[in-house]
Amino acid sequence: MACAGRGWAAAPTAAAPAPACSRKPAKLTLGLASYSLRNFDLDKTIAMTRRAGLGHICFKSMHLPLESTPEQIAAAVEKTKAAGLVLYGCGVVTMRKPAEVQQAFDYAKAAGMTTIVAMPLPEMLPLVNEKVQQYDIKIAIHNHGPGDKVWPTPQSAYEKIQHLDKRVGLCMDIGHTVRAGIDPVETTAKCADRLYEIHMKDVTAATAKGKTTQVGRGIIDVPNFLRALIKIHYAGVVAFEYEEEANDPLPGLAESVGYTKGVLAVV
Amino acid sequence: MACAGRGWAAAPTAAAPAPACSRKPAKLTLGLASYSLRNFDLDKTIAMTRRAGLGHICFKSMHLPLESTPEQIAAAVEKTKAAGLVLYGCGVVTMRKPAEVQQAFDYAKAAGMTTIVAMPLPEMLPLVNEKVQQYDIKIAIHNHGPGDKVWPTPQSAYEKIQHLDKRVGLCMDIGHTVRAGIDPVETTAKCADRLYEIHMKDVTAATAKGKTTQVGRGIIDVPNFLRALIKIHYAGVVAFEYEEEANDPLPGLAESVGYTKGVLAVV
Repeated sequence: MACAGRGWAAAPTAAAPAPACSRKPAKLTLGLASYSLRNFDLDKTIAMTRRAGLGHICFKSMHLPLESTPEQIAAAVEKTKAAGLVLYGCGVVTMRKPAEVQQAFDYAKAAGMTTIVAMPLPEMLPLVNEKVQQYDIKIAIHNHGPGDKVWPTPQSAYEKIQHLDKRVGLCMDIGHTVRAGIDPVETTAKCADRLYEIHMKDVTAATAKGKTTQVGRGIIDVPNFLRALIKIHYAGVVAFEYEEEANDPLPGLAESVGYTKGVLAVV
Repeated sequence: MACAGRGWAAAPTAAAPAPACSRKPAKLTLGLASYSLRNFDLDKTIAMTRRAGLGHICFKSMHLPLESTPEQIAAAVEKTKAAGLVLYGCGVVTMRKPAEVQQAFDYAKAAGMTTIVAMPLPEMLPLVNEKVQQYDIKIAIHNHGPGDKVWPTPQSAYEKIQHLDKRVGLCMDIGHTVRAGIDPVETTAKCADRLYEIHMKDVTAATAKGKTTQVGRGIIDVPNFLRALIKIHYAGVVAFEYEEEANDPLPGLAESVGYTKGVLAVV
């Protein structure tokens, strides 16, 4: 009954590559959007990510400010790697002017990140399109739901980027997608060629009034969403963004991760 | 996408019946073996049980001592009910002499419990057999794995109780069962008519050296075990007994509950 897999089953031990054991190879890579742990410093964030059984992490700026020096970035990268975590991206990064676009790509390059999750203003897209080619780093535009006039849905971004370089893509936040009345299963199929990041969560209602909640307690059809990701051979990270209980998020985050792993054990 | 179910989906609100929403009706009732929270008092135990999304609880004696007065028992029962939890049982209770058998049945009756999870000495079984009839309360004999000379496996208990009153049955601890080299899926089918309680957990190895771990991180085939319970129309509680991290068990307990709910959403 011994097993070898990747990405999501075993409890990590200090300095070892994080999760390592499962009866089946992992079908999807699970990670953390570190905004979930916004009220904790980097050391605690790393420890809690490991404890939740996640092996990949995407930094929000409170865990590594965008204006960090190369030395500060190197130190944070080393600390994260030493803990057995893969630091693969950053975000959500707002890009309202060229200097913010430039800063984000320099930061991501210095940290060895492959993906920038971002909310650029549409007029920044030509510059973003240059930078993804110059740096060979992907950008994933994050949809923020019915309250966001620029990127309410994945579709609103997809139509503006489909003629740009392939490295310009989407981060589908399934909570905000569902709150906007959009089906994340259909969206996964339609935007498959540009889907580079997922913000994983659940919501209490498929309307603007829907609140985030533990994965499995809300109204999102998680099994069919995960099936859709597997069907398109989604190769990015499914990053948990658990927004509730900001001062004690670990139980809710752990339940969300557990639920997702439970579904993945069967679908 | 609204839904109505029972037992395991929504976050409970104060004094409401605990969980209330799911896309499908719950196939199994999930609960807590309160030994998991042995280092916490009753108030904290109730709060953590609710936060973990569980609606049923089985008290270990530190949360309500067996020698409690009727008034103390009534107060604990009222507090548990007011929090929206169903207090359905107690245990594990050791029964080495007649007075301990009598005490457990009086305690369970006073608390309105339907099930006593117990480890009686075999010579107590004739008295236990009388008491289940006298009190109309079930007893579920708990197997404790390869280190237990009396009840190492569910089978060791089943063969001694199958000719007794139907209210004498088993609590299958799937961790100890697997540690004893026994398949819980086969056991579920074979002992179906006497299976009254499950201690839900996972273990790191199918040997005496196996350690308990979060459900989904170990080697137990949880999907097939849950399928087996559904197949026999198991009507008892699947009670999480999370033994690790005794001073901070909520994240591991929540992950275990989440994993189980995730599997149940698909099987």
